[in-house]
Amino acid sequence: VAKRLEKFKTTIFTQMSMLANKHGAINLGQGFPNFDGPEFVKEAAIQAIRDGKNQYARGCGVPDLNLAIADRFKKDTGLVVDPEKEVTVTTGCTEAIAATMLGLINPGDEVILFAPFYDSYEATLSMAGAKIKCITLRPPNFAVPIEELKSTISKSTRAILINTPHNPTGKMFTREELDTIASLCIENDVLAFADEVYDKLSFDMDHISIASLPGMFERTVTMNSLGKTFSLTGWKIGWAIAPPHLTWGVRQAHSFLTFATCTPMQWATAAALRAPESYFVELKRDYMAKRAILVEGLKAVGFKVFPSSGTYFVVVDHTPFGLENDVAFCEYLIKEVGVVAIPTSVFYLNPEEGKNLVRFTFCKDEETLRAAVERMKERL
Amino acid sequence: VAKRLEKFKTTIFTQMSMLANKHGAINLGQGFPNFDGPEFVKEAAIQAIRDGKNQYARGCGVPDLNLAIADRFKKDTGLVVDPEKEVTVTTGCTEAIAATMLGLINPGDEVILFAPFYDSYEATLSMAGAKIKCITLRPPNFAVPIEELKSTISKSTRAILINTPHNPTGKMFTREELDTIASLCIENDVLAFADEVYDKLSFDMDHISIASLPGMFERTVTMNSLGKTFSLTGWKIGWAIAPPHLTWGVRQAHSFLTFATCTPMQWATAAALRAPESYFVELKRDYMAKRAILVEGLKAVGFKVFPSSGTYFVVVDHTPFGLENDVAFCEYLIKEVGVVAIPTSVFYLNPEEGKNLVRFTFCKDEETLRAAVERMKERL
Ligand SMILES: CSCCC(=O)C(=O)O
Ligand SMILES: CSCCC(=O)C(=O)O
Repeated sequence: VAKRLEKFKTTIFTQMSMLANKHGAINLGQGFPNFDGPEFVKEAAIQAIRDGKNQYARGCGVPDLNLAIADRFKKDTGLVVDPEKEVTVTTGCTEAIAATMLGLINPGDEVILFAPFYDSYEATLSMAGAKIKCITLRPPNFAVPIEELKSTISKSTRAILINTPHNPTGKMFTREELDTIASLCIENDVLAFADEVYDKLSFDMDHISIASLPGMFERTVTMNSLGKTFSLTGWKIGWAIAPPHLTWGVRQAHSFLTFATCTPMQWATAAALRAPESYFVELKRDYMAKRAILVEGLKAVGFKVFPSSGTYFVVVDHTPFGLENDVAFCEYLIKEVGVVAIPTSVFYLNPEEGKNLVRFTFCKDEETLRAAVERMKERL
Repeated sequence: VAKRLEKFKTTIFTQMSMLANKHGAINLGQGFPNFDGPEFVKEAAIQAIRDGKNQYARGCGVPDLNLAIADRFKKDTGLVVDPEKEVTVTTGCTEAIAATMLGLINPGDEVILFAPFYDSYEATLSMAGAKIKCITLRPPNFAVPIEELKSTISKSTRAILINTPHNPTGKMFTREELDTIASLCIENDVLAFADEVYDKLSFDMDHISIASLPGMFERTVTMNSLGKTFSLTGWKIGWAIAPPHLTWGVRQAHSFLTFATCTPMQWATAAALRAPESYFVELKRDYMAKRAILVEGLKAVGFKVFPSSGTYFVVVDHTPFGLENDVAFCEYLIKEVGVVAIPTSVFYLNPEEGKNLVRFTFCKDEETLRAAVERMKERL
């Protein structure tokens, strides 16, 4: 294996899903629904396949999807973007992240991440030869330590990655935090990379796209995807929205990472994004009900539960149960209790910082969530 | 844009397909069929979508597809591979190439390419920080200059990329050439990266996988895809087959480039690979008929046509028509004749070497091929 990837292990999501299958445990680990996506989106994909939309798409996306993404972004943020020059369709948000890092970051550039963070940020920054500067968000609120952020920014800082709503914590960045980050970006000529795949799962406050703050669009790459919003995580359709000079870098990397994205699923995604607003309202309502079941359940089991304002994840402190760290706790939970959670230490540069925390997902039907809670009540 | 991608332009395939649309020209440029894939494969995808196979696949591939790939590879090469440890499903062969380069090549490693070459090899090697050593295959036979190859291999050579059947020339590497390359790889402890996406389009000799030569499997990454063999280029399902120590590098890069590949299309690909042998026989027969139409037509138009033994491409010398180079010729061809071809200079490190050659594809229905030939006869 090349040096740039030497330090990385099999992703924790893969490891835990394999263990879930092996032990027949209830999988509240990796974030994929155990229910299906909407019929109208599936039918749109079937129609596209039947209609012979099965050859290479345009590299930057099927025009109709680029348009649907721009329309959706306008509804969400008020920003008018050019579907042809500012939108790039990718193979899931994961590829949007890789293309952003490889397309825009030079060796030696510093990029600021907030820990805990999704593992592909670190790996793709390593591929790009970037220097990672890491700022830890700490429980209970996972607030941004502004002074630390200020002193971390230097002349070599090229970008700050903002993931809101935030995986794994469920934190949503507040308007004050985003305003401060935006001022710092503008003052120091720093880019913002915004991973907003959970934007439609914003429960306790409205989602704010950092691109929508004054002066920010021109320096922001906003990434999103179909999977979480439409419960079709396996289709792997994502996108990046950015001004033309940044889009150029993203598209160049994308051209050579995958060239283009699955054509019929792009047509279906265009249909999905044109869903009536009621779809998004119901999605949020359903997830709030699921969140209530899991959060109340975890409290009743005896965990210290940190507030999840968005995403379909919730983080808890497992230390009341006396296991030495998050990995040991998750192993015990799988083998002795029959429930899978994700240890959070893998989301930190310094794994020690995550040793008390584990993440559960509530993107499962209510019966499954209740069954998992029951198992924990009985066996923990 | 990051320095690693500075020198690259919009891919020639995208440029030419855009021009084709703009000028209403017949597109014999980018290699995608203007006919649809087989019904049984499309129906398998539709079934998978209906069956709810819509969430994240396992990162390395849906188990049933890994198995189907291993079975197919055994039929094709006689090699028995472990579907779980030696097969990785990727987003098209393009991602397999990127994952191989980023997963196995370190900065400063030398990698040998045979020019002309598919543009993503150079771009992904640039992402990996490799040093490219380029050996030019020259018309009329595009034979491997063995002495030059021998003197190009050095202590820093990490890999040789072999694309057979070869895009853009249609050359198939002979057994002697492959034997020599294999001995050199073994002697000098060099890896082979084998892009074999056109293996089922081998017309004038049998395709030979370099992995099947003695001592080679353990040092070869063999890449292939669904798209060309099943006329479904837009589905973007590819794979890499390699011994576990090389698979590890490919998988690690793949994990962070895209994580996983479109789930329902993976199920459909498994069905495709289990097609009866008659499917492959008919495919070859159909393409040989198309080749005959285009090759005879191009000769009648007045081109010097180089033999295409495999792929769905044929390269010609355009100089009888007096345009100054391949790019000028292709521009003239689009605007004045209404046919799109691909200039080959983009496939060389030194563009000068391709200035007499342009590539046509015959992956179009016979009527389209005939119409293109007629236009050229009338207007060139
Ligand atoms: C590719 S696993 C993706 C992200 C996610 O769903 C998770 O954090 O579990
Ligand atoms: C991604 S374009 C792919 C390769 C091909 O089909 C071509 O060379 O035209």
